[in-house]
This record gives sequence, C-alpha cells and structure tokens, in this order.
Amino acid sequence: MAKDSYLVGLIGSGIGPSLSPALHEREADRQGLRYVYRLIDIDVLGLPPEAVGDLVRAARDLGFDGLNITHPCKQLVIEHLDSLAPQAEALGAVNTVVFEDGRAVGHNTDVTGFAASFARGLPDASLERVVQLGAGGAGAAVAHATLTLGAERVTVVDALADRAADLAAGLNRHFGAGRAAWAAPDQLGRLVAAADGVVHATPTGMAAHPGLPFPAELLHPGLWVAEVVYRPLETELLRAARAVGCAVLDGGGMAVFQAADAFRLFTGREPESARMLADIAEMAGGFESSVRKVV
Amino acid sequence: MAKDSYLVGLIGSGIGPSLSPALHEREADRQGLRYVYRLIDIDVLGLPPEAVGDLVRAARDLGFDGLNITHPCKQLVIEHLDSLAPQAEALGAVNTVVFEDGRAVGHNTDVTGFAASFARGLPDASLERVVQLGAGGAGAAVAHATLTLGAERVTVVDALADRAADLAAGLNRHFGAGRAAWAAPDQLGRLVAAADGVVHATPTGMAAHPGLPFPAELLHPGLWVAEVVYRPLETELLRAARAVGCAVLDGGGMAVFQAADAFRLFTGREPESARMLADIAEMAGGFESSVRKVV
Repeated sequence: MAKDSYLVGLIGSGIGPSLSPALHEREADRQGLRYVYRLIDIDVLGLPPEAVGDLVRAARDLGFDGLNITHPCKQLVIEHLDSLAPQAEALGAVNTVVFEDGRAVGHNTDVTGFAASFARGLPDASLERVVQLGAGGAGAAVAHATLTLGAERVTVVDALADRAADLAAGLNRHFGAGRAAWAAPDQLGRLVAAADGVVHATPTGMAAHPGLPFPAELLHPGLWVAEVVYRPLETELLRAARAVGCAVLDGGGMAVFQAADAFRLFTGREPESARMLADIAEMAGGFESSVRKVV
Repeated sequence: MAKDSYLVGLIGSGIGPSLSPALHEREADRQGLRYVYRLIDIDVLGLPPEAVGDLVRAARDLGFDGLNITHPCKQLVIEHLDSLAPQAEALGAVNTVVFEDGRAVGHNTDVTGFAASFARGLPDASLERVVQLGAGGAGAAVAHATLTLGAERVTVVDALADRAADLAAGLNRHFGAGRAAWAAPDQLGRLVAAADGVVHATPTGMAAHPGLPFPAELLHPGLWVAEVVYRPLETELLRAARAVGCAVLDGGGMAVFQAADAFRLFTGREPESARMLADIAEMAGGFESSVRKVV
C-alpha cells in the first residue's frame, strides 16, 4: 500500500542550521509517513524577503502540503494568503501555511507552541506580574501566549523603545487595557524584583550571542525564568537562574511544540511530543536541560 | 541518523494516472531512502505547456532534486536547461531533468529505457528490418533506441506523413543515410511481411484507445513485436501476436527502465529493476505478461 505522503518546507533567511527538518521527519518516520521537509533559504537563492509570495505560490503549484515561515517573512507572507487562523490574525505574523484545496491558510504555532510548552513545563507558575525581555518577532508571539495563558500584566522591555511601546499597545488592544506595559532596560532591576517570572525572548545566550541578557544579581528565588533560546538548551541565563533556585523552562519546549502543532496542521495526525522533546534534547544538546527532566 | 532525502516530480498534462510516483517511491522505500514524488499537472494548475520553464525554475528553488517531464513539455523544456546529455540532445526531447549545484541538466531515459527493455526482453531479435508504427514523441525515442541497438533499417509509419518523414530525416542525419525510411499506413502489409520485427508506438491498445493498430492478419510467425503501451500490459496487439507465435515485448519494461534510469540519475544509486518490473506487473495488471515471465 502507498504510504501517506507529505511535502513541506521552511522559507526564511539563514536557516541552514534549522532543526525543523529533523524534528518533523523523525516524527513522521515513527508514524510511518512519507515526509520530506525542505529548507528554502532566500539568502542561498539570492532572493529578497518580498519573494515569499512567489515562493508560496510555487510551493502550492508543485505539490507542497504546507510551509513553515520564519524571519524575515512572517509578516510579508500575510498578503499572499487566502485566510488566517485567529492567533495569526491577532499577532499579525504567520509561521505556518497550510494548503487546503488550493487555498493557503496562515497559522501561528509559535504562539500555541510557547503556550503548550509553558503549561507543561511551569504548570504552577504564578502569572500576576511577568517581565518579558525582547519585543521582536519571537517576543510578540510569546507575549500573546503568556497573556492567553492568563498573565495579568506583562511588561515588555527592549533596547528599542518604539518596538516595546508598539508591542505593548498592540497587546492592550487585543487583550484589554492594562494587560501590557513597556519599559526601558534601565528599569529591569525594579521590575524583576517585583515580578513572578521573566520570559527571555532576545537572541542573547545563543551560540552566536553568548552571555547573559541582564545581570545575574537580579535573579531571586521564587522567580520563574522561561527561555526562548534553544541552542544551547542550557543557556547562561538558565544556568544562573537554576543556581539561584528559580524554576526554569528552556526553549526546547517551544521549538518542539511549534513543530508539533505544525505537524498536526500539515498531516491531521497527532504527533507524540514526548518523543520530539527527546529528539531536540539529543540534537540541541545540553544535559541537565529541563526538557530531559520533564521527559 | 538522517536518511538520504529526495524530492522529485513529474510535469505534464493529464498525468493523474501515472505510475511513476509508485515506481519510484516503492524502490526508494526498499533502499531506505526518504523519497517524495509529486505530480505537477499543468491541466490541474490551469497552466499552458510553456509554463514548464517557470515550473522547472521553481522546483529548483524549492529544493527538488530533479523532475521527469512528459507530454506536452518534452521539447519546450529544453530552452530552460543549462545542458543536455547526448541522447536528449540527439533526440531533441527531455524526459528527465537533474538539478546539480543549481544547474539543470536534461536527459532522456525513454531512449535508454526502451533500449534496456529490448536488450533484456528480446535479446536474440534480428534487427535487419524493423517497422515502427508511430512517429510521435514516444516513436522518436524508441526509433533512436532501436537504431542505437544496431537496427540496420527502421521504416517509420504514421498517419501523419509529414511527421513520419521528419522523423526519418532526423534519424538519417544522426545515424547515417539509409538507416531510416518512412511510409504511409497503406504500405504496412508489404512492410510487415518483409520485416524482422514491429515496434508499436501509438496509443492504440491503451485502455482509453482499445483495439489493434493494424489488422492481425499481417502478423506472421518469426516476427517479433515490441509494444510501448503498458496499460494494460497485455494489449490486443500482443495477444494477437502471441497467438500467432511471435516473440513479444510488452511496454512495462520501457516504463520500468525509464523510471529506473531516472532514479539512478536522481539518487546516484542503482535501482533493482527486477523488483520494479514486479511492481509494474502488479500495478498495470495483465497476467501472462512477458514482464512476469521475464521476472
């Protein structure tokens, strides 16, 4: 009998090291699906970000079942789609496109992925006062997720004040006035001291950007710390937070659950996220990761 | 470990019933390769045949390893390629495109596929005088193959006199004067009576075009009959020829070997053609087929 067959890809810039092909293909193999996940790197192709529309149309014509979309195309792709799922519409960003009967539907599994990872990894975390570092694309997604999970107030801190202010304003429009605020980095000490938890959504701590996003002295027991970076799984921030006694959540869970949610959208099948968490722990490395503990 | 991963497709018109996806994917499965074969039907897409250039470029950009090309795009695709293999150049038709380091190279495995099938299925056939019915795309490919195998003289018969004359002229230019001739269908009786074998390269006998391409009375013992049609494997022509005592070759071998040759070009791996012949016998049906006997 012919196996069910799926063809998907990722459009973005500088995506060569992405773990998405392996995350999707390994889970598909375990489910006995024929599944190819291709990287479509606009840098390698010498195309501008605006080419995403042509690439999406071409992928539909050539038999792709769907696409993931990443930086710098998550907003640009929207005008080329036929409809948007609610989280993608609210966020104004799409990381997953599903082709259904010739129509292209945009979703955002960064939002659902972070929410699922948080609910699983920090189920008892208090969400009264949350401080979030980073108001870029990942920051917007995780702020939507945190507020969807019931955070009372999220204060966004970014070195770019305009970006932080814009994100907070958008969050207040969507979730209700007073749910979000913004502040400059020099306010971090005061904010973290009074916070229940910190969400870190900047690139600091990635292999290419080592270091801490703020002084370790700001950490205090009772604070939870959730990380978006997942390469390595054990960032300097998480190591410092763990040393102080904070509950921590590494970025592997978000990476896995956004992939798992996309896999479900592409195939209509339920992925086994525990196996995918074990995969990312193996691939992204970092023993003592919370992912491994949770698995 | 990650499996080697291949993405290929077929561009053409009305290709929904093609067996190529199954032929390729089954062999890939046996070799443990990740392999997706997609049908890219210009009728379904509402595109003209001239769109083949855009489709080939898009496939390259989206990470395809290669493409098969069929009617009506086998000639049109040529101007969009970077280079041609010798059989494709000689024939002026491409059925296989391989992407290598961003370059698109055209091949013709219809020629090599028919030659391989003939050498395997009718190894002792005399090739002094060959009559071929049909001067279309398949006819051009199999005439090249037959002359490459050493046929002394191939006489091409087609209801369209210009097409037959053009093919014969091209064959004489390529293989040497006197190797090819053409004739009108009313000459078939005389030609077949004096021939060693007949190659049938028209659609007659396909499920959608049942019947015999010429009166069964023209068949005589000692004649071999090679068929291009492979759905069904056992055409009325082959049944009639077998009843008279002719050695016969069904079209399944050409279908398999063109696919096997393309598989080798796409993957660099040696396909096991015996297993692929068993696959087509199962899929195209027709018990008592020569394919099954040969396997």
